[in-house]
Amino acid sequence: MSVLKLDECRERIRKELDDVVNFWLKYSHDTEHGGFFTCIGRDGTVYDELKYVWLQGRQVWMYCRLYRTMERFHKPEILEAAKTGGEFLRRFARVSGGGSSSSSSSSGGQWKCAFCLTRDGKAVKIQRTIFSECFYVMAMDELSRVTGDKDMQLEAEQMMEQLVYWVRVDGSGLGRPRLPGDVPANSMAVPMMLLCLVQQLTEGRGPEVAQRYRELGSWCVQQILQHIQRDGTAILENVSLDAAELPGCQGRQQNPGHALEAGWFLLQYSAEWGDKELQKTAIDKFVELPYRCGWDKEHGGLFYFLDVDGHCPTQLEWNMKLWWPHCEALIAFLMAYSQTKKPELLDRFSQVYKYTFSHFPDAQSGEWFGYLTQDGKVALDFKGGPFKGFFHVPRCLYMCERILDDLLASEN
Amino acid sequence: MSVLKLDECRERIRKELDDVVNFWLKYSHDTEHGGFFTCIGRDGTVYDELKYVWLQGRQVWMYCRLYRTMERFHKPEILEAAKTGGEFLRRFARVSGGGSSSSSSSSGGQWKCAFCLTRDGKAVKIQRTIFSECFYVMAMDELSRVTGDKDMQLEAEQMMEQLVYWVRVDGSGLGRPRLPGDVPANSMAVPMMLLCLVQQLTEGRGPEVAQRYRELGSWCVQQILQHIQRDGTAILENVSLDAAELPGCQGRQQNPGHALEAGWFLLQYSAEWGDKELQKTAIDKFVELPYRCGWDKEHGGLFYFLDVDGHCPTQLEWNMKLWWPHCEALIAFLMAYSQTKKPELLDRFSQVYKYTFSHFPDAQSGEWFGYLTQDGKVALDFKGGPFKGFFHVPRCLYMCERILDDLLASEN
Repeated sequence: MSVLKLDECRERIRKELDDVVNFWLKYSHDTEHGGFFTCIGRDGTVYDELKYVWLQGRQVWMYCRLYRTMERFHKPEILEAAKTGGEFLRRFARVSGGGSSSSSSSSGGQWKCAFCLTRDGKAVKIQRTIFSECFYVMAMDELSRVTGDKDMQLEAEQMMEQLVYWVRVDGSGLGRPRLPGDVPANSMAVPMMLLCLVQQLTEGRGPEVAQRYRELGSWCVQQILQHIQRDGTAILENVSLDAAELPGCQGRQQNPGHALEAGWFLLQYSAEWGDKELQKTAIDKFVELPYRCGWDKEHGGLFYFLDVDGHCPTQLEWNMKLWWPHCEALIAFLMAYSQTKKPELLDRFSQVYKYTFSHFPDAQSGEWFGYLTQDGKVALDFKGGPFKGFFHVPRCLYMCERILDDLLASEN
Repeated sequence: MSVLKLDECRERIRKELDDVVNFWLKYSHDTEHGGFFTCIGRDGTVYDELKYVWLQGRQVWMYCRLYRTMERFHKPEILEAAKTGGEFLRRFARVSGGGSSSSSSSSGGQWKCAFCLTRDGKAVKIQRTIFSECFYVMAMDELSRVTGDKDMQLEAEQMMEQLVYWVRVDGSGLGRPRLPGDVPANSMAVPMMLLCLVQQLTEGRGPEVAQRYRELGSWCVQQILQHIQRDGTAILENVSLDAAELPGCQGRQQNPGHALEAGWFLLQYSAEWGDKELQKTAIDKFVELPYRCGWDKEHGGLFYFLDVDGHCPTQLEWNMKLWWPHCEALIAFLMAYSQTKKPELLDRFSQVYKYTFSHFPDAQSGEWFGYLTQDGKVALDFKGGPFKGFFHVPRCLYMCERILDDLLASEN
């Protein structure tokens, strides 16, 4: 890709980001009850009024990040949308451990966030995992940065403390019964998510805050690196607490998109701390390796799940092409290139870019399709669903635009 | 389909049943720890040692049913396999409500069954639903019929009492927190499953037992009929407790294979009680209608999930062709034909038969593939997995063979 093409690529990405933001501004806001509709059909129609909490938190975060860091999105309507989304979350997302009220007293001071709410904010479902709470932290911290609300920032930090307690001290507050056959495992999602939050909470807040989260960040990195298995030839999604391979499908599971996402989290961390060795590991093991294992040589695109020994995964969607692994791959390769200037990394970016932009964007109604068959046909045509909201697409476009800005500026 | 062809069809089905039974006898038995491996690859290799409880119970049931009712399967090795499977289930499947031991005292006398066990029987996961317990009842009742073990039969009946309590009186023992937005619903799986168990527990046990379960059976039928919605033009999978349509995706969801399975359960019930009106409703609404809505006119085969208003379902696998809806459709159409002799029902059977036998059986390694893409290619090539065991395929072949026996005998 020549300099000229990088420039064209940036223009395409910039335009795409504008369009995607407009799509969600136009179709997702619930002006009656607050918060965001997340189930949005191909043409923008709301096909279900349920409000998924991961996606509420992510949308608040994304609006604030765009408002705070990109001049063309520093607009009152975006700030207003973020604030009303944040109010909806604060008012309705938190339920006590028992799930029945907004008081934390009945569960020993522990807060759970619901996974899904009715349109008017009643809890429908609680997951026994940490992720709703993680996206709550992301939203509150970023929102506090644009509003200057110190209470909100404190609330984000308090929820973060609880997350760390669940993960590192005692997870019984999550509500899963302890079963003798359910051996605790290191699932890559957990340290990845916490590392992401460490970066969120510390960014630009100075050395005192950085120091406070330093040990946690380092722990997250070590936990992620434990997923390098089989003499460095595979990233496995779940490993034992002492970094050994687990038996069965769980142990052999690979999720290339997830590994690529971990890759760029590690690259950010390595840049922040000037850790060249970690940078090399991140690129070799979490960017290039998942691409080599996960790219479909026949049809193109990244598989969703694979089994490291070549067994058929048991997930029915294993061979589908999802939007988000491609978003993560774009960020990972472009960031890796920008840090190293190795041309082969730009070639990979270019390859993923071509597949992504020729398959996922919907030229007819805007935004991106999320779910393709193995051979690249649209399998589910909605723009928002229980797990697809205003997040992976705009975060990818935002990150890539900024990296391209830097690359193009340094080349001129 | 002429008489000759029905005869050919029976031969194919009989041979297929023999092959499928042999596949599971050969590859699924754990001679070391008891019970059955359920994750079995294309060629018979065990790719995961986890033992899924639904599938343990179903395999015990199927072995016993074949042993008890078909002369060529009345063999010691099948009885022995069923008994060791039953022992494994009795010993390990039940966990207390808290999940930590086999004592029921800590949960007020309530038993839960695990969803998944390690190879040596340690609980890995408990679902907050009734289905593990349902398949436990099926297994124990059928096993007690071949062994004459009255304690086992009593145990099945006691577990059944508890199931009915959870469903009709108080479901809090299942462990789901009550959430204000989680409105109780009538999910078709529940009354279907209980009706199946009523038929299991009463079959051939005389009028006293039939009387004991009569009200429950009738209640199940009424609950199933409430899923006829939209002026009789659709079967919806979830309805409100007062038989109204629910909002959103949950309310619009259709599962044609499930409706067809309900269809033949209702046909059995209508035959038992001589209810001609129910027979007509079962055929019109639960056999012909789901076929018309659910058959893929472009590629053939039954869709897994559909939305009654034509929105895209949010289940990633919605357009895949699964083995079990086709198994249920074969039983439903053949039973409907055998009860009515309407030729159009035999035509439908023939159409489903052709699709099924040209797509699912694996000519190379035996048994059936379970999961095809929309256009009929094998998407997952294993023979057993977390939800596919020794059940839908052999039950379908068994039921069809018996119905064809009767049809051919009456035509001669």
